[in-house]
Amino acid sequence: MGFAIISPGRDVSKWKESLARHMPSLDIQVYPEITRPGDVEVVLLWQHPRGILAKFPNLKLICSMGAGVDHILSDSELNPNIPICRVVDKGLTNPMTNYVLMGILTYQRQLLRYQKDKVLKVWDMSTPELDITVGVLGVGALGGDVIKKLQVLEIPVCGYGNSPREDASFPYFCGEQLPHFLARVNVIVCMLPLTEKTMGFLNIDFFKKCQRESYLINVARGSHLVEQDLLEAIRQGYISGAMLDVFSKEPLPTEHPFWNTPEITITPHIASVTNPDAAVPQVIENYNRIKSNKPLLNTINRIKGY
Amino acid sequence: MGFAIISPGRDVSKWKESLARHMPSLDIQVYPEITRPGDVEVVLLWQHPRGILAKFPNLKLICSMGAGVDHILSDSELNPNIPICRVVDKGLTNPMTNYVLMGILTYQRQLLRYQKDKVLKVWDMSTPELDITVGVLGVGALGGDVIKKLQVLEIPVCGYGNSPREDASFPYFCGEQLPHFLARVNVIVCMLPLTEKTMGFLNIDFFKKCQRESYLINVARGSHLVEQDLLEAIRQGYISGAMLDVFSKEPLPTEHPFWNTPEITITPHIASVTNPDAAVPQVIENYNRIKSNKPLLNTINRIKGY
Repeated sequence: MGFAIISPGRDVSKWKESLARHMPSLDIQVYPEITRPGDVEVVLLWQHPRGILAKFPNLKLICSMGAGVDHILSDSELNPNIPICRVVDKGLTNPMTNYVLMGILTYQRQLLRYQKDKVLKVWDMSTPELDITVGVLGVGALGGDVIKKLQVLEIPVCGYGNSPREDASFPYFCGEQLPHFLARVNVIVCMLPLTEKTMGFLNIDFFKKCQRESYLINVARGSHLVEQDLLEAIRQGYISGAMLDVFSKEPLPTEHPFWNTPEITITPHIASVTNPDAAVPQVIENYNRIKSNKPLLNTINRIKGY
Repeated sequence: MGFAIISPGRDVSKWKESLARHMPSLDIQVYPEITRPGDVEVVLLWQHPRGILAKFPNLKLICSMGAGVDHILSDSELNPNIPICRVVDKGLTNPMTNYVLMGILTYQRQLLRYQKDKVLKVWDMSTPELDITVGVLGVGALGGDVIKKLQVLEIPVCGYGNSPREDASFPYFCGEQLPHFLARVNVIVCMLPLTEKTMGFLNIDFFKKCQRESYLINVARGSHLVEQDLLEAIRQGYISGAMLDVFSKEPLPTEHPFWNTPEITITPHIASVTNPDAAVPQVIENYNRIKSNKPLLNTINRIKGY
């Protein structure tokens, strides 16, 4: 079975090397040099050109290069019957969790305040830690890992998701219970999948339901956040600050007001960068499974969108 | 049995309230108003005036208000046969561990770099995380907790201590093995007890054995560090930066060069502040144990000094 890597504008040499190392016999074509489209049965994608998948008549499996599949599902020409798999991997989970913990701990222990104090040579021991309860939006593989680690660190945490759950080891809220969830937490971590339902989820109506001076961490997608609404929520005191790793347009344009907002910490979409060596064994496993008609791992639900 | 709280220059009202709440019958005198020295059988101390303990002829137990006892042992007039207890409490451990994790994660994920990039409106996705191995100096209750949590976060960690250990679940080094330990790690966390042996432990000879550009976190005592040597180690590239919570003189004097050293993050001794409500039950427990001649909890070894 033939394989293609499609990720315009990105250096995919590490992916190709890793795939070849794990399966030397694999026939790999790399976009834009796909000269034998009829041979392509499995594709590995990140932000592929719209419509290109229709050129592969023998396509059997679509793999995302990361945890998200919104970049695949947003292709309106997508064949609805080809399975899509994403990466569920510690190589993605650990960096993401550690980034989120960094955001939570720097807020709780007020690193930015001490950095300002340093400039002024001020020694202020008052309020050595803030009382926080973390609310994680999205309790899938990534959100679930953050919750588990916060429990180990004994930091209070609640979760919010789309569907009811009986088995949660933490206070869990879903659907219409959003106001109850937001009344309980003051650090909000967005780890939602991007779907039609969650696009623009973090808007001014959401922020007005938050406890005053809540802190926001967004490591999901830029489109979850209505960026102007965050600025308004900061002005009105619903949100005291934010650590943002994702933006509606990336790289964040130099004229964007976030650059000049002192309450906002910006990182350039680095919370979790897929490590090919960690993700490739999973891609190979699914390649072997589709070949031998075995059930695939980490397929996504087209209706739910994740 | 009578009780005295001695902590000059500190507001101890929360300690007194908490003790009274846990044991309403307790006869508490607070320094400097100790009018009945003969009634004092148990003292709770933080940086007591030298020699004051000799004024209590019936003293049976000395309790530290924190995890450290160096402030007690440095009293040359101390009666060598009165037991000393310290606080070993999650109320101390969790904030300390979370502070250390904040230091490690902000270094690994390079928060300071992104803060500088923000000023310049630079979007630089290169090297999203540094390869780190953490080395914890001092593997007691506090150091051990940091190691345990780092293992949960899957961040590589080694420990270094004074005595041999067989049971360690992590690479452990002791005594003369310091160079081997330092060759393995590039983030050094000082959690040593302060003893004659460990005073000035972090000096230029130590730094010259470190991997180049190692990062230092000191949450133990200011006297562990030879402060001028750290500045020299940064100049020479042995150390790339540091997060310091303790200093040889506190508050850190405004003329101290650390204030103007961009590689050094300063916090005002807030990594772990003893919470009276968390520590007092332990003090009361030992009060009851000494009264009924039962073995004490968390006594320190006078010879070792911790």
